[in-house]
Amino acid sequence: MSTEANKLQPAFNPGKGEGQAVGLAILGYGTVGSEVLRLLNKHSDSLAQRAGGPIQIKGVAVSDLSKPRAGVDPELLTDDAYSLINREDVDIVVELIGGIDYPRELVLAALKAGKSVVTANKALVAAHADELAAAADAAKVDLYFEAAVAAAIPVLGMLRRSLAGDQVQRISGIVNGTTNFILDAMDSTGATYEEAFAEASRLGYVEADPSADVEGYDAASKAAILASLAFHTRVKFDDVYCEGISKITADDIKAAKAAGQAIKLLATCELITNDSGESEISARVHPTLVNRSHPLASVSKSYNAVFVESEAAGELMFYGNGAGGAPTASAVIGDIVGATRNKVLGGRAPGDNTYANLAIADFGNVRTRYHIDMKVEDRTGVLAEIATICVENNISLRTVRQEQYPTGTRLILVTHTAREADLARTVDIIAASSAVLGVESVIRLAE
Amino acid sequence: MSTEANKLQPAFNPGKGEGQAVGLAILGYGTVGSEVLRLLNKHSDSLAQRAGGPIQIKGVAVSDLSKPRAGVDPELLTDDAYSLINREDVDIVVELIGGIDYPRELVLAALKAGKSVVTANKALVAAHADELAAAADAAKVDLYFEAAVAAAIPVLGMLRRSLAGDQVQRISGIVNGTTNFILDAMDSTGATYEEAFAEASRLGYVEADPSADVEGYDAASKAAILASLAFHTRVKFDDVYCEGISKITADDIKAAKAAGQAIKLLATCELITNDSGESEISARVHPTLVNRSHPLASVSKSYNAVFVESEAAGELMFYGNGAGGAPTASAVIGDIVGATRNKVLGGRAPGDNTYANLAIADFGNVRTRYHIDMKVEDRTGVLAEIATICVENNISLRTVRQEQYPTGTRLILVTHTAREADLARTVDIIAASSAVLGVESVIRLAE
Repeated sequence: MSTEANKLQPAFNPGKGEGQAVGLAILGYGTVGSEVLRLLNKHSDSLAQRAGGPIQIKGVAVSDLSKPRAGVDPELLTDDAYSLINREDVDIVVELIGGIDYPRELVLAALKAGKSVVTANKALVAAHADELAAAADAAKVDLYFEAAVAAAIPVLGMLRRSLAGDQVQRISGIVNGTTNFILDAMDSTGATYEEAFAEASRLGYVEADPSADVEGYDAASKAAILASLAFHTRVKFDDVYCEGISKITADDIKAAKAAGQAIKLLATCELITNDSGESEISARVHPTLVNRSHPLASVSKSYNAVFVESEAAGELMFYGNGAGGAPTASAVIGDIVGATRNKVLGGRAPGDNTYANLAIADFGNVRTRYHIDMKVEDRTGVLAEIATICVENNISLRTVRQEQYPTGTRLILVTHTAREADLARTVDIIAASSAVLGVESVIRLAE
Repeated sequence: MSTEANKLQPAFNPGKGEGQAVGLAILGYGTVGSEVLRLLNKHSDSLAQRAGGPIQIKGVAVSDLSKPRAGVDPELLTDDAYSLINREDVDIVVELIGGIDYPRELVLAALKAGKSVVTANKALVAAHADELAAAADAAKVDLYFEAAVAAAIPVLGMLRRSLAGDQVQRISGIVNGTTNFILDAMDSTGATYEEAFAEASRLGYVEADPSADVEGYDAASKAAILASLAFHTRVKFDDVYCEGISKITADDIKAAKAAGQAIKLLATCELITNDSGESEISARVHPTLVNRSHPLASVSKSYNAVFVESEAAGELMFYGNGAGGAPTASAVIGDIVGATRNKVLGGRAPGDNTYANLAIADFGNVRTRYHIDMKVEDRTGVLAEIATICVENNISLRTVRQEQYPTGTRLILVTHTAREADLARTVDIIAASSAVLGVESVIRLAE
């Protein structure tokens, strides 16, 4: 077969940069778009060498032409994104607008017109990956979105290529910088959630609508993308269980610290085995207690990190800037170079291969561990009553701590791994017990 | 140009795995070879899906057919590597023999015969990359060697692809597990070098000839490969300044610890500006003092980590198993899947693009910082004498500590950044000074 395959491969002239020029359309000129343009211009010679041919910017689509735009030749600006996409000399379309519905239409239009697409839009990919991948396959063009997860950290490329011969078992990621900043500030300064949130706002880490970050939706989009690539199965945003950090209190952080743990908002993507012995996927985002000795615990400020456990490679961790104009632009331009190489030299990037087509586990069947902190009555028999509730609901306890505080008696349970549904029901029953004055917090633990 | 380019791109059927079979020859059946074969057999169905076609093992070449080999069909074994390579049905050759001269001949024979090559052989690549890359380009086939640096940590793929649009400024890597194990054991237990070395031997981390590890040659090969890819310039083993860890004492480790630092054997690859304002490359391996707060300081045991600083992405770190049969096999199979995809679907992996062709800096002109620990005479005027020597040799001091020990007076200098040649000459002059009883240790600091 060598002979046939070789016929398909055009000559490769590394370092020549003399291939035919590739035309680029940039949609959106915000923080990322302007940084992409700046770096493309600054490094145009070396990028041509790396990509096999010069990358020429044909136009930049913006919504409002009257707004002043620094750093871009006014001749390049247009408010007609569709005409730009469909220009004969545009080969690659870079979508940096944000949102879902409008960029979805633009990206589909580009793919259908035979243009390769690079996007940094996690919400779009997590919601419509099936449709986008099908359009890219039908047109035999590339669809790249490295910047959609953890910006400059090349975790998608690693899953698509480097780990293509391995079996990923679990991914645990800190993939939202805003929430990591808030939790880290609470941890390192003892601040309340509100104080840490205000500090994050002051530093520009919080969006106009903060719910995508603090309620975990942004991390859930990224979990869907990571799980899809890791397990060769389409996992969508709606498949991801999602719980944010807005209920985490200074007391929770303090108690975790005392126990040698940190609270992190983790996106966990796991290959699990159901009761019938079949493989299923669990993808979930929730505050998670992590041992201080784990590399994820020391990821500070707004940094991101993705911890991967796989059959042969063992434990890997990737760490870096998960947001910001320049880091996102780094990933976008890496994708542009890849798409350009393929346009000039032939070949396609590995697409979203969903051959495994595994089921998404019912969240109630996923096995987790709970840390439960409650105020209880100060009388004998309370511990026995709670312990009995646990036994009756298939929950085995790993540690039990009863402590006297000026505010009353606290009981802190750490369970062994159990079915999520059993754990949740147990908490409900405990909360309703006459011995319990109030359940203060329920936080899951990393394994 | 879209039209012409599309003509070159064969239809891609993701998830079908129905492409023509690709034939594999494995050269070498040691720890890595047997693990590669085991994983290829175990995951043959899913690998076919990911690669676009089935991967068929056509033969395994070994040096001694009479030796019993577990886990391999005896029919596949041969001691005639050249005939195996040249078989019509072999498309990809996987070199896992080790050494330099013999594997070089085999790899060149394979490339010349139009076979793609996957190798884990860092010494071969660091010594002969020019020749191998030219042969791969001439035959328009792939030459992959992800496993050659840091085994399962996909740092080469990251440099080749994800950071292709960025400008790497510096790489600082812990890329040799044996020496990291020894230094970490000395740090955590207070052991001497000899004790830690014995423990590493007991655990099987030390080769029959330990010099490649402890003298830094293995790390230097990896530094050459990293620098080549990061700076788009051919950097060879001989271009790398290399100093091992065998002179590090328990006292050095203790002093570093007291100063909030750890001693690590770092492979540093740096883009520097020479006096004429031109960019040059420095690649060097030597024991390095790293602040405890730096992520590299907490890389323990035999783990590897590669810290990358680049213009747009900022700081990135990749962490994982840098050696061992399974992690190395993970990287090798990732490369096999990539080479198979390209055979089935067309295209080639990005090769070693050396367009930048920068000069290698003279080590004497590289700017570093020194930590100098010496025994001095216990009399007035010593400090002034040493300080004068430094001034006369363009060395500016950052901190000076004079301490009384039962064994005498110690003077510990930490310099500001200066030319390596000036620093080395200064140490020679200091050592010859009548005020100095002996220079105990000279260790460079990370910036």
